[in-house]
Amino acid sequence: MKKVSDSAVIMHELVLPNDTNVLGNVLGGRVMHLIDICAAMSAYKHARSPVVTASIDHLNFLSPAKKGDILILKSSVNYVSKTSMEIGVRVESENTITGDVKHTASAHLTFVALDESRKPKEIMKVKPTTDVEKERYKAAEQRVINRKKELYN
Amino acid sequence: MKKVSDSAVIMHELVLPNDTNVLGNVLGGRVMHLIDICAAMSAYKHARSPVVTASIDHLNFLSPAKKGDILILKSSVNYVSKTSMEIGVRVESENTITGDVKHTASAHLTFVALDESRKPKEIMKVKPTTDVEKERYKAAEQRVINRKKELYN
Amino acid sequence: MKKVSDSAVIMHELVLPNDTNVLGNVLGGRVMHLIDICAAMSAYKHARSPVVTASIDHLNFLSPAKKGDILILKSSVNYVSKTSMEIGVRVESENTITGDVKHTASAHLTFVALDESRKPKEIMKVKPTTDVEKERYKAAEQRVINRKKELYN
Amino acid sequence: MKKVSDSAVIMHELVLPNDTNVLGNVLGGRVMHLIDICAAMSAYKHARSPVVTASIDHLNFLSPAKKGDILILKSSVNYVSKTSMEIGVRVESENTITGDVKHTASAHLTFVALDESRKPKEIMKVKPTTDVEKERYKAAEQRVINRKKELYN
Amino acid sequence: MKKVSDSAVIMHELVLPNDTNVLGNVLGGRVMHLIDICAAMSAYKHARSPVVTASIDHLNFLSPAKKGDILILKSSVNYVSKTSMEIGVRVESENTITGDVKHTASAHLTFVALDESRKPKEIMKVKPTTDVEKERYKAAEQRVINRKKELYN
Amino acid sequence: MKKVSDSAVIMHELVLPNDTNVLGNVLGGRVMHLIDICAAMSAYKHARSPVVTASIDHLNFLSPAKKGDILILKSSVNYVSKTSMEIGVRVESENTITGDVKHTASAHLTFVALDESRKPKEIMKVKPTTDVEKERYKAAEQRVINRKKELYN
Repeated sequence: MKKVSDSAVIMHELVLPNDTNVLGNVLGGRVMHLIDICAAMSAYKHARSPVVTASIDHLNFLSPAKKGDILILKSSVNYVSKTSMEIGVRVESENTITGDVKHTASAHLTFVALDESRKPKEIMKVKPTTDVEKERYKAAEQRVINRKKELYN
Repeated sequence: MKKVSDSAVIMHELVLPNDTNVLGNVLGGRVMHLIDICAAMSAYKHARSPVVTASIDHLNFLSPAKKGDILILKSSVNYVSKTSMEIGVRVESENTITGDVKHTASAHLTFVALDESRKPKEIMKVKPTTDVEKERYKAAEQRVINRKKELYN
Repeated sequence: MKKVSDSAVIMHELVLPNDTNVLGNVLGGRVMHLIDICAAMSAYKHARSPVVTASIDHLNFLSPAKKGDILILKSSVNYVSKTSMEIGVRVESENTITGDVKHTASAHLTFVALDESRKPKEIMKVKPTTDVEKERYKAAEQRVINRKKELYN
Repeated sequence: MKKVSDSAVIMHELVLPNDTNVLGNVLGGRVMHLIDICAAMSAYKHARSPVVTASIDHLNFLSPAKKGDILILKSSVNYVSKTSMEIGVRVESENTITGDVKHTASAHLTFVALDESRKPKEIMKVKPTTDVEKERYKAAEQRVINRKKELYN
Repeated sequence: MKKVSDSAVIMHELVLPNDTNVLGNVLGGRVMHLIDICAAMSAYKHARSPVVTASIDHLNFLSPAKKGDILILKSSVNYVSKTSMEIGVRVESENTITGDVKHTASAHLTFVALDESRKPKEIMKVKPTTDVEKERYKAAEQRVINRKKELYN
Repeated sequence: MKKVSDSAVIMHELVLPNDTNVLGNVLGGRVMHLIDICAAMSAYKHARSPVVTASIDHLNFLSPAKKGDILILKSSVNYVSKTSMEIGVRVESENTITGDVKHTASAHLTFVALDESRKPKEIMKVKPTTDVEKERYKAAEQRVINRKKELYN
């Protein structure tokens, strides 16, 4: 078993012109790209093997980040099933001049770990220790059940 | 009212080295980035105003595209609520040598149209004409109801 | 023999800030880059083997695309010589707000197909079926003759 | 009048993985992109005003550059018509280990200079001084006549 | 006065193919690019105004990061002079499979804060609190003196 | 022995939107990235073997280049120790409309050449011929001594 904090990843990214649309807002797809990379790094840190994105849950864009803002992403492993793990990612944007921080989006992604023959392989369990981690663990466990139900409907 | 086909967008993208991980698989985030751009172009074509991504539904990665493959994305407007519209995107990957085509992912995104003061503005309704369009319209209408329920739970 | 439509490729590309010069116009070189990728995908779809760009004919930039526009590229195989094929590409730009579409450029490229030892290999002929395809076939056949003349002058 | 050497531009570019196809060859479109940027810088240096690419002549890819090679581009103004100028670009690729240099492509591009209202503006003539420059001047003058003929055919 | 921890920035970056040379090692310039962005974000967080890079001290590349590794950058403000501040950045690379972490480089950069007329403006002092921060403060203070000496030699 | 001029590299780069911050100034990290690539190409031309960046000396940013400017980089080998060489790079920025040229930065980098087993290998000496080259050679020789002193302090 590994601690949740062993898979914690923090990214800071400066929003450059090419990341934005004509209104100067970050493209939703750019945010999703960063979410996937952040989550993948947490998945690597937990599973220590090649990983692939299996799915991402419904995602709302709450507040638009702007050109020149700092995007802050934080991720860690919420829960581990046999060969897959749920990673949670929180994205905030910070105005560099005022320091205002806004919640941009939160995401849950499922990653699968692969062995040498590129088949799914069993992943070590994760051990939540803080209260927040335990809540996330429980909520993720329920989401795993819900996702399976929807697949087999 | 505008026809669904007026918002149809087709993208073909060659998978370049930087789009892939060490296994040579396309990064999930790269696919999501392209999905968002494809959907945004359909949203522009329907609403003819600035648009922003409001949300993306749960998304499964069914089959990994590889370096050198052609990614094919197809999108169109499924349904219009007052100031938002649901766009459907289907992603396939094609092996350039064998011609094999695989289903990579399907996505439903919600976009909001903005007026000059960057407030949500009303969007013209969409008129499904073919049977497939009518089915998608109906399914999207139900998803809009479900998304609202989940928000107000 | 393969039908022309089997090699048809459509690209939609959103013009991002980095694609433009200080006037907000798309760089000519960016358009040429997309033309080459679009044509390469048609070449892959027809020849089903590795391909390389051998040449591009004289190209006029008729109307500048702007930041935020949608670039639309359409390509297909016009004609096949022994180991090379001519691909035609038409580029248009669409203003996302007004819907105005302008003709940006048209191009003819020659691609060569390669075998396992990276030598040119014979390519299956193409069969034009519609009147437009037949006209393009005939015009391309004449261009192939003209290109050879210029090489041996 | 300005000397040809005042518009001379030399670029050295290291070929990075994303510039190449699955064979490790530089994409033709990448080379064209660099050709356009190199020529644009010569056009800026001669005209000292905003410039846009008007056309590029037929271009043959003579020898493929590879991943890790150095691309060397050299450009200068060949000839000036009233509001347009022809720029010549020569591209070579150098193997970093053996030092072998190959001729990749040669190109002639036409650029137009723009005034404050973005209309074509008159460009200062160019004065060839060396024998090579005088030959290029004469050949370019003839090409300008040929291009006009083809336009008005 | 502001605490050092208020300017702390952590970046995690996945090394993509285009960041590497033909040996699969990260390009030194890519690392320097990330160092500058990381330091700039610390400078923004401390000064809350536009900032520009004024200088970077001698930098040794201790151990090469590889394609697929995670680059981890950590920065914070070491010391503030009147209108400039020294930012320290430490770069490590982590092998995703083994978890081995290596020290890639350490850097000291000087940033200047700008007012509305883009002139250097006075920056709030920084208050070191931990022992490490106090050591860094003292060492940076000495480096500021040394840099001035070298300038006026 | 090889002449200094054999390692001379000139780069011209158009400053694109994504290379700049919200003030329209080139990011310091972008300049450092180009400096490293320019120096690496000089190192390849001299050593004709794989090379890696070992260090970069203290670097001042003297004058900010702006969006739309031309960055001009010039590099060559100053001096060769047993398995390492010092490369000097000078960066200038040119305003495309006025033609004004400013000194942006000057840098000294140390590169190491590698043999087939990726171990440092001996590098051919460099022969300065012009007075400027001889001065640079002597100054670089002194810097090599100083760098060693600082390492062993």
